[in-house]
Amino acid sequence: MKKLNSILAVAIFSLIMVSCGNNNESKRSGGAMSSNVAEKVYVAPGEHDEYYAFLSGGYSGNLTVYGLPSGRMLKEIPVFSQFPTNGYGYSEETTPMLETSFGFIPWGDAHHPDISQTNGELDGRWVFINENNTPRIARISLEYFETEEIIEIPHSAGNHSSSFVTENTEYVVAGTRFSVPYPQEDIAIDQMKGNFKGPLTFIAVDENGGMSIDFQLKMPGFNYDLSHPGRGDSHGWFFFTTYNTEEAHTLQEVNASQNDKDFIAAVNWKKIQEYVRNGGGEEIDANYAHNVFNHSTQTATTTMMNKVLTVDPRDVEGAVFFMPTPKSPHGCDVDPSGEYIIGNGKLSTDLTIHSFSKMLKAIENKDFDGDAYGIPVLNFDATLAGVVKDGGLGPLHTEFDDKGNAYTTFFISSEVVKWKLGTWEVLDRQPSFYSVGHNMIPGGNSRKPDGKYMVSLNKITKDRYLPTGPELEHSAQLYDISGEKMELLLDFPTHGEPHYAAGIHADKIKANSKKIYRLDENKHEHATLNESETRVERNGNEVHVYMTMVRSHFAPDNIEGIKVGDKVYFHVTNLEQDFDVPHGFAMIGANNSELLIMPGQTKTTTWEPTKVGVWPFYCTDFCSALHQEMQGYIRVSPKGSSQELKWSLD
Amino acid sequence: MKKLNSILAVAIFSLIMVSCGNNNESKRSGGAMSSNVAEKVYVAPGEHDEYYAFLSGGYSGNLTVYGLPSGRMLKEIPVFSQFPTNGYGYSEETTPMLETSFGFIPWGDAHHPDISQTNGELDGRWVFINENNTPRIARISLEYFETEEIIEIPHSAGNHSSSFVTENTEYVVAGTRFSVPYPQEDIAIDQMKGNFKGPLTFIAVDENGGMSIDFQLKMPGFNYDLSHPGRGDSHGWFFFTTYNTEEAHTLQEVNASQNDKDFIAAVNWKKIQEYVRNGGGEEIDANYAHNVFNHSTQTATTTMMNKVLTVDPRDVEGAVFFMPTPKSPHGCDVDPSGEYIIGNGKLSTDLTIHSFSKMLKAIENKDFDGDAYGIPVLNFDATLAGVVKDGGLGPLHTEFDDKGNAYTTFFISSEVVKWKLGTWEVLDRQPSFYSVGHNMIPGGNSRKPDGKYMVSLNKITKDRYLPTGPELEHSAQLYDISGEKMELLLDFPTHGEPHYAAGIHADKIKANSKKIYRLDENKHEHATLNESETRVERNGNEVHVYMTMVRSHFAPDNIEGIKVGDKVYFHVTNLEQDFDVPHGFAMIGANNSELLIMPGQTKTTTWEPTKVGVWPFYCTDFCSALHQEMQGYIRVSPKGSSQELKWSLD
Repeated sequence: MKKLNSILAVAIFSLIMVSCGNNNESKRSGGAMSSNVAEKVYVAPGEHDEYYAFLSGGYSGNLTVYGLPSGRMLKEIPVFSQFPTNGYGYSEETTPMLETSFGFIPWGDAHHPDISQTNGELDGRWVFINENNTPRIARISLEYFETEEIIEIPHSAGNHSSSFVTENTEYVVAGTRFSVPYPQEDIAIDQMKGNFKGPLTFIAVDENGGMSIDFQLKMPGFNYDLSHPGRGDSHGWFFFTTYNTEEAHTLQEVNASQNDKDFIAAVNWKKIQEYVRNGGGEEIDANYAHNVFNHSTQTATTTMMNKVLTVDPRDVEGAVFFMPTPKSPHGCDVDPSGEYIIGNGKLSTDLTIHSFSKMLKAIENKDFDGDAYGIPVLNFDATLAGVVKDGGLGPLHTEFDDKGNAYTTFFISSEVVKWKLGTWEVLDRQPSFYSVGHNMIPGGNSRKPDGKYMVSLNKITKDRYLPTGPELEHSAQLYDISGEKMELLLDFPTHGEPHYAAGIHADKIKANSKKIYRLDENKHEHATLNESETRVERNGNEVHVYMTMVRSHFAPDNIEGIKVGDKVYFHVTNLEQDFDVPHGFAMIGANNSELLIMPGQTKTTTWEPTKVGVWPFYCTDFCSALHQEMQGYIRVSPKGSSQELKWSLD
Repeated sequence: MKKLNSILAVAIFSLIMVSCGNNNESKRSGGAMSSNVAEKVYVAPGEHDEYYAFLSGGYSGNLTVYGLPSGRMLKEIPVFSQFPTNGYGYSEETTPMLETSFGFIPWGDAHHPDISQTNGELDGRWVFINENNTPRIARISLEYFETEEIIEIPHSAGNHSSSFVTENTEYVVAGTRFSVPYPQEDIAIDQMKGNFKGPLTFIAVDENGGMSIDFQLKMPGFNYDLSHPGRGDSHGWFFFTTYNTEEAHTLQEVNASQNDKDFIAAVNWKKIQEYVRNGGGEEIDANYAHNVFNHSTQTATTTMMNKVLTVDPRDVEGAVFFMPTPKSPHGCDVDPSGEYIIGNGKLSTDLTIHSFSKMLKAIENKDFDGDAYGIPVLNFDATLAGVVKDGGLGPLHTEFDDKGNAYTTFFISSEVVKWKLGTWEVLDRQPSFYSVGHNMIPGGNSRKPDGKYMVSLNKITKDRYLPTGPELEHSAQLYDISGEKMELLLDFPTHGEPHYAAGIHADKIKANSKKIYRLDENKHEHATLNESETRVERNGNEVHVYMTMVRSHFAPDNIEGIKVGDKVYFHVTNLEQDFDVPHGFAMIGANNSELLIMPGQTKTTTWEPTKVGVWPFYCTDFCSALHQEMQGYIRVSPKGSSQELKWSLD
């Protein structure tokens, strides 16, 4: 059967659903009105939330941190995008974080956060997240809540089936969504079929979190949509959904939906790891940036890399197989035991569940149904564990609780459906407002998920909040899943477009959270560790100001001898050593952002004055009762003036 | 008496207070635990908040929109800062919004939002907000929730005592915080005293919101900290606090705190308006940008202005007076009747309240206590209405309810104090966690404040939420003020540093909120209003792509004939006309941001390909069940290739 009919049905249904939100149905249907519910999400002043939820910002390029059950946004961590709030991507220390082989890129599309694991359980050390547009993977420290590392993924395009980690954080994967010439070349687009490839990249993570590309698997030119690692018995394998196995290059909404089944690719990465350890694979040219922020020097550096190891899956016997999966599978989720691999065919009403043990048996028996570009296709029935029938319309993603239940989102019928692993029986369904994409259960992508809360991340907001013009925030909903039936507790707006989220119990993070940068550990090249060392130095038309800040003054606060045409570097150190006493530095007319500088931290910004006069700078963070007095002046003389350099405080 | 002793006391106390937050006192002292309280802030799924609160983002440069009582952030509106999320400050249409006489500035420090008024009541048309660092005022539409206009303030520095509106939105004011040479010149910083000036700028607002500088008042070189307009009988006057009347240029935390009293400047703007209407004032050179976003062309333009009308206050008899006010007054707040002007001396424990009617009498009686640079100083006792004794330590700001009460924030003793207008009696006090700056009552800066909620905007966060590393969000607290005693309801984190906020009942805004851009009103120069008109045009090495997007494809989606060295302009129109169906546009390796394009809208971004190959673009906003299929390819050939330009869809 062709998928085209179901596409049309889906498209029409989708339009109907999307329009529904305009009326006020939700007021009647979405309510959860009892004071009991209010109490369940209320975190009283002075108390803390129970869980952290890390939501991708989607096209904001960042990662947002929420508390559950309150739904309050606790922080936005800049990752792939410039962040004027604290100078990330503008300050000299942080601009290297946004370097790529395409040059400086101030923006990213962040999709799937995943928390590091030890023995299949979340360990709270780092969050990884992928950038979809200019393919990259970032690692964020959960001690500092700062981005520490970004690695570019060469030969990739649309880095979507990323960034999921294996159960001891051996690897974080980055799978291409859009097939491309591999390596890139100037060929006609309509020559795509058979010529483009879909590389899957395995990035090794060392004990300090350091990332390096171990190998790239040169897969057929399908679209690799999502992925998850095996766990337990299936640890050592990775599973990727594919769509557009038609290899259509245009009007994919029709042309990529012709085949009745696409595939889930099963990759035995342990076998490939062994292969490359034994000298397998081919080193080819590549051009990609590796950016690392060093907390000791407080400075990021970019290293341009030029080689990558590529592996042809056909060269590694028994390493890669395709499992046919109906109707453009989107989500690819593995249950906590590692036995079940759930493929959600987004143009289907059913879910297809593959069995890992049956898959091993089918491989052993060579129960193949031909091959695709030389990769064995397993017999559909041989790997099938079961089908969840008539779950809803447009299934996308599945998460798991600690009681053997699964929770699948349905975009088109706009609901979350709870079903039983093993019996495939639907147990409950709750509407989402509106059109849920991913959902998230803390620990859901691990051996030990938590069974208390589920968050649905909805794609359409419409009337859920007070209107704010044509452009709206996205929306999430919090459900209590501790009982037999799901109970909707709360709607909360989300910043950017949260594609996916990773949740973790607060106890696994809060004790390790850093409060300050220690001055005695500050190895910044331009740090000024006490006021007596503050100074201004000229080197040609470059002027370096070594400045300190402490409640409530800058040293120096009067500078003369700057001239039009100079480039002034402000190296500013915050001498405070108390928690939550940042100072900011802003210079009138500077063509970048302010600096928000934490206690013990040094940051650098530049200023190229164009106008003669006396110009102020000031602290941007209200730091004390005398914050308004925390300012200074810089005298700018004409180019060529003989005004000598001088600086002072009082 | 010198202020120095009290400064030291304050500084020590401040350090103590700031350290307090490190322990867990708050868990015991800050609680509000009853289910009754939970219900008061719970907005059930499908229901709406009762009030909008517009919070300045401080050093984020933006304006955030919250719902009350839930404390949920409903939107971040980009104003003075680049916003990668939707391309503001990156797209061709919006970069002019961030132009200044100093060039393009990607960042701002946003401080004081104020909602437009008619007859002294909030009318919900616009919010104004000031940029402090590179002085500007912005106007934000409350139909579109978008920034429509930004005007730079020439001859100013530290645009802090801004942007407050008069009771028919005749003017929005912009007062300088840092005195500067006026006009700027190359003089020694220690020549400040008597030579620097503190210009106050009055910006006329026309019936469509259009801003133009009417005049600048060339005031003595003090620091003008905050301001508020008169209302009722005092309509026609504007009041500004000053500090650093010492005119200290260095170590202001000590040197600007020597005088026992600074001033509140009372400005009769109606008199000055009449003076300039009759040809008064002097036109002088100025250089400033005026940026306007046109919703019809969907494009911003920058006009560089070169003159401003300056008025010497001494030339306008009876227009400007100084009221001595103790101890570096910070907040300058006018009660709903317009009779009382409250000066909060931040190094004091008392509040000083001036009487408008007594001020008029003192002026009539020429009850002067000398002058300051030729401006009459009114006798302190002659204008004094009363003193609120021992309110707390470090008073900053005051708001008002509808029952004759005032609510003053105390930074150092970290509390909000309720007192009675007229009797000056303290009625209640509640701790803030920690160190409150501004507070906000919806309508508090108008003749008709609302008496239900108050929000305190706190400067120190510490342990109020789950820890998130050294850098924390700021924090607000919501109080129920409908009863005799204030009741703390909720802590909620705030994005950026909210200096001030403006609140308004939702009914005054929600009906006018736009849902889409109408295609039949789209006059964008490069709009493509239907798919049949999509095309690609080459002009030398400039290539213009006229593209459309609709669920779920781009037209065209295959383009060939682009070459390395080209500059490609993507003019992308979203053909949808349903509410909340944005599409995004992202091009791999582009050195700016994505575009988030609302229904009916056209936006432009550029791409300068540097690498030969076949490169994808895609939709960044999950728009339908076939969103993943919404993509296209562009073939990039080598520079000088003879590959002809072609484009297609299917």
